[in-house]
Amino acid sequence: MRKLTVSLGERSYAILIGRGLLDQGALIAEVVRAPRVAIVTNETVAPLYLSRLEGALSAQGIESRAIVLPDGEAFKNLDTLNTIFDGLLRGLCDRSTTVIALGGGVIGDMAGFAAATYQRGVDFVQIPTTLLAQVDSSVGGKTAVNHPLGKNMIGAFHQPRRVIADTDTLSTLPDRELRAGLAEVIKYGLIRDADFFDWLEAHMDGLLGRDPTLLSEAIERSCANKAKIVAEDETERGVRALLNLGHTFGHAIEAGLGYGEWLHGEAVGAGMVMAARLSQGLGYLSSEQCERAVALIADAGLPVTGPALGADRYLALMAHDKKVEAGRLRLVLLRDIGDAEIFADVPADQIRAAIAQCCVA
Amino acid sequence: MRKLTVSLGERSYAILIGRGLLDQGALIAEVVRAPRVAIVTNETVAPLYLSRLEGALSAQGIESRAIVLPDGEAFKNLDTLNTIFDGLLRGLCDRSTTVIALGGGVIGDMAGFAAATYQRGVDFVQIPTTLLAQVDSSVGGKTAVNHPLGKNMIGAFHQPRRVIADTDTLSTLPDRELRAGLAEVIKYGLIRDADFFDWLEAHMDGLLGRDPTLLSEAIERSCANKAKIVAEDETERGVRALLNLGHTFGHAIEAGLGYGEWLHGEAVGAGMVMAARLSQGLGYLSSEQCERAVALIADAGLPVTGPALGADRYLALMAHDKKVEAGRLRLVLLRDIGDAEIFADVPADQIRAAIAQCCVA
Repeated sequence: MRKLTVSLGERSYAILIGRGLLDQGALIAEVVRAPRVAIVTNETVAPLYLSRLEGALSAQGIESRAIVLPDGEAFKNLDTLNTIFDGLLRGLCDRSTTVIALGGGVIGDMAGFAAATYQRGVDFVQIPTTLLAQVDSSVGGKTAVNHPLGKNMIGAFHQPRRVIADTDTLSTLPDRELRAGLAEVIKYGLIRDADFFDWLEAHMDGLLGRDPTLLSEAIERSCANKAKIVAEDETERGVRALLNLGHTFGHAIEAGLGYGEWLHGEAVGAGMVMAARLSQGLGYLSSEQCERAVALIADAGLPVTGPALGADRYLALMAHDKKVEAGRLRLVLLRDIGDAEIFADVPADQIRAAIAQCCVA
Repeated sequence: MRKLTVSLGERSYAILIGRGLLDQGALIAEVVRAPRVAIVTNETVAPLYLSRLEGALSAQGIESRAIVLPDGEAFKNLDTLNTIFDGLLRGLCDRSTTVIALGGGVIGDMAGFAAATYQRGVDFVQIPTTLLAQVDSSVGGKTAVNHPLGKNMIGAFHQPRRVIADTDTLSTLPDRELRAGLAEVIKYGLIRDADFFDWLEAHMDGLLGRDPTLLSEAIERSCANKAKIVAEDETERGVRALLNLGHTFGHAIEAGLGYGEWLHGEAVGAGMVMAARLSQGLGYLSSEQCERAVALIADAGLPVTGPALGADRYLALMAHDKKVEAGRLRLVLLRDIGDAEIFADVPADQIRAAIAQCCVA
């Protein structure tokens, strides 16, 4: 088992990574305040892992109440959130209850937001079961639901008490979701860890083959990178914006096609290619390093071209992004592999050109 | 103008108290990050004060967008919250937007919770227009909406950047609401400020006559008391529970009759009488001091007897209170005027006796 600490003062917590952790109820018992928890999961994950988790908790004398939600981003809204509150209240859960998220990013975001706001905040433990959730949403404390007018528009920062990433749960993950998770893994290499990028180039085949040791290492290095950034900037006022590499373009792809058409990681993959091409076009990134970035994204089986929405539509959608501050679009661009920087006021013509270059006709 | 600072480190803020502050747009301009704000108010308050506030802001070059909600506790729910999010998103409000609450406690709670969760948190300014809101909800950062299964069950701690209490707005407040506000004022005297209690005994007539100077002093002393408690215990893990004097009984009255039948302050008034009688019955409070407490509550025109729900029903409703932790009912009781303490495991028979003593047959 690998152990990583996210350092946030009194909100610090550990990420545990390894095989078979789901069955080790003690890892949860160590951090709950009362022997009663609520497990939030979905209809896909519940048949696979819920009874195992309940059994592991029961062996520790912890009583659990399951709240099973429908599966999918389409249900990540205030109505479904209310289903969680219903379950917590019907279970007479009080402020000493711990909410456990068992599932992917959507479950983590919703259960985390419910924990952040139920009775003004209760403890939260995450058991991410997708690669994306293990490397991304498990670090940083971001929780949210969507609004019809925008994704993740309603949320809170709420740090978990512990994250338990059981790599065995990745065995049931569809290939497409595995690749989408790798988009965020590659991102950490691109924005701040050239050594990790080299390692990913060398081991992409093994990762796609789900080698457990390689996956554990990729998860640990991704989380370590994100943890360092989050520790510097817990509430996203500065350096944390680097984590948005590819996300502003990706957001336009997801919104333009309608959410759910592409997976988030797929949109981020193509978005990172656009950011790399734009960086190159502006003279910040060498063409050699740009091609390395594009090649690794392609090797992970991710799209390297975006849908042909038209550059103007991309720009309009990008202007609606949550990262826009006081009307100014800020983009994360690359100086080198492992070196990213935030730029405001990038000329629209240059952005259009990069988008055009990366879209299928 | 009186100024009081709530000391919470980097979240510290000022409460400004005085006449005509609503027209002083500079008091808001000093604390906004961008010249665009959203004003959340209701259909009762908007015709009285909205255009004045908009004019004062406009004179400072601040563009405002009004979000007018229906009036009443019945609308303090997730649906109405979503109306606020709709307004913010349609107004293209970004993370630099400040949400301003213009109204009583319900508006403050809802606008505050919207500010806490819109894009994971934006700035918040409170302009409370009721006595209850000026002395109570303006300090402490508690925000919330109700759930069908419980009041204030969904919320967050989110401190305002500034609170502006214009005592002139109390001129339009119905008598019943003025008295309900005085319940919380009396509470501060009872739990920790015997001098203030003496002052209230001497000035209750003037307060009921809405003397602006007396009202300002009562607001300042109430806020100062609450600010000290909140500074010691921002997220309600300890001493802050003293603020719940009378509230557990009051909660039972409100829930038992159906919310809205009695005003919150009225239920707290009768609840404080029950807490005083129970304190006396347990031998903690002298009968002389108990009678002083009851007399001041009566002088404020508040109920000193509760509805005859039956003691068992009271106990059942009290067990559902948010303050219950791990199944144990904790009650705030009085040792003396100005000296309160938290007790767990008070014998149910004693509680029943105090309730019976305070209920009309």
